[in-house]
Amino acid sequence: MPSDTPQPAFVLVRPQMGENIGAAARAMWNFGLDRMRIVAPRDGWPNQKAVAMASGAGRLLDEAQLSATLADSLEDCDFVFATTARPRELTKPVYSPEAAMKLAAEKTAAGQKVAVMFGPERAGLENEDVARANAIITVPVNPEFASLNLGQCVLLTAYEWRRQVEEVVDVTTDLGKSDWANHADVDALVNHYEGRLEEAGFFFPPEKAPGMKVVFRNLFSRLPLTRADVQMLHGVMRQMVRWKEKRD
Amino acid sequence: MPSDTPQPAFVLVRPQMGENIGAAARAMWNFGLDRMRIVAPRDGWPNQKAVAMASGAGRLLDEAQLSATLADSLEDCDFVFATTARPRELTKPVYSPEAAMKLAAEKTAAGQKVAVMFGPERAGLENEDVARANAIITVPVNPEFASLNLGQCVLLTAYEWRRQVEEVVDVTTDLGKSDWANHADVDALVNHYEGRLEEAGFFFPPEKAPGMKVVFRNLFSRLPLTRADVQMLHGVMRQMVRWKEKRD
Repeated sequence: MPSDTPQPAFVLVRPQMGENIGAAARAMWNFGLDRMRIVAPRDGWPNQKAVAMASGAGRLLDEAQLSATLADSLEDCDFVFATTARPRELTKPVYSPEAAMKLAAEKTAAGQKVAVMFGPERAGLENEDVARANAIITVPVNPEFASLNLGQCVLLTAYEWRRQVEEVVDVTTDLGKSDWANHADVDALVNHYEGRLEEAGFFFPPEKAPGMKVVFRNLFSRLPLTRADVQMLHGVMRQMVRWKEKRD
Repeated sequence: MPSDTPQPAFVLVRPQMGENIGAAARAMWNFGLDRMRIVAPRDGWPNQKAVAMASGAGRLLDEAQLSATLADSLEDCDFVFATTARPRELTKPVYSPEAAMKLAAEKTAAGQKVAVMFGPERAGLENEDVARANAIITVPVNPEFASLNLGQCVLLTAYEWRRQVEEVVDVTTDLGKSDWANHADVDALVNHYEGRLEEAGFFFPPEKAPGMKVVFRNLFSRLPLTRADVQMLHGVMRQMVRWKEKRD
């Protein structure tokens, strides 16, 4: 069963190679989309090459809604996007993938059925297909080199869908199994180093020692250290001392 | 020659299949990136399968910087991202592709050399590779199904790069060869229809005619019509009249 999250259907119009249908299914499911529609696939349906390529996303193919005509496929839709790179002599709003999926998220959340059409591999959508759309999506590619294939176009659109509906965190820091070191941890570390370095004659000449210690303490305070980092740095110093004591 | 626009280098670390190296080159050049580095490709270099797959982006392969080790490849870099899906026991900031490419755009604009590492097809980057990075990029995929391949990961990162550096227009409307109709155009159209519909007995009964005319005018005023649309609607009415006159 498709998930019941509101989401657009992705409609593959007259797709040619089974591999590309399978790749499209994987691209969709990578970003949590699982409602595929297929119109007049060139090599019939089901397609074993599609199944082989889809691997973990094979469910999307099993559940795909197959239609003989685009009109049948879009019948229940309230709003339809057409993905196309070529400029058309059709008056129609052209959305970036981001703006399109933002609108799709608003519409699906309000209970509307939204579809996104993707054309066949070689030629893309025909003007007659695009004329059925409420709006166009164009990926902002390099004007000198626009060569996105079907799977890539599905991937980028699905990626933008997820960006619009998921709380994507811009930056996080993975602490592994540790925590950030607090002030006491860093203080103990600096004191440990300072004591040993004092013994080792690091703070020399004596009149410069106070300034050197401030610079030294500041260095460690500035670094984003975890508790695990602090433990390792303690270990470094202990080991240096052990090594020194062996040589005595 | 690579373009002289500030941009990050994309570093393919121990890539396996030539096809994927070629696909990565195409994905990059689709979004205007043309500085590829390759570290220890499994099947040697140059690679004919890579060339065949790259088609129009073959220049990136010719100009790619080949290195035997990752350390050599990253030697001149000021800031390095590692793309990886797996959580690591390494304390390191994790960026979304968007936030990462925003930071990359800032750094490259300030004259820094930025690199983005992509791991080999099966296993991805090793911990030893990731340990060389200043930060991690993780694509926010479906936790139930994360199966991005090398080319897809390059594609999404390159797409986000272009989003950060290009002025991407959210919505435009392609008018084809026409212009928006102005008030006078719509007024003339409504008057044309109103006159003919009056003759045809459309506004009936007479006491309701004024209200019906307001509703009728409002309909056309509300629509985003182009001059071409208006001409076509004039033609529709003229043709209906012609047809009626023939039958008389």
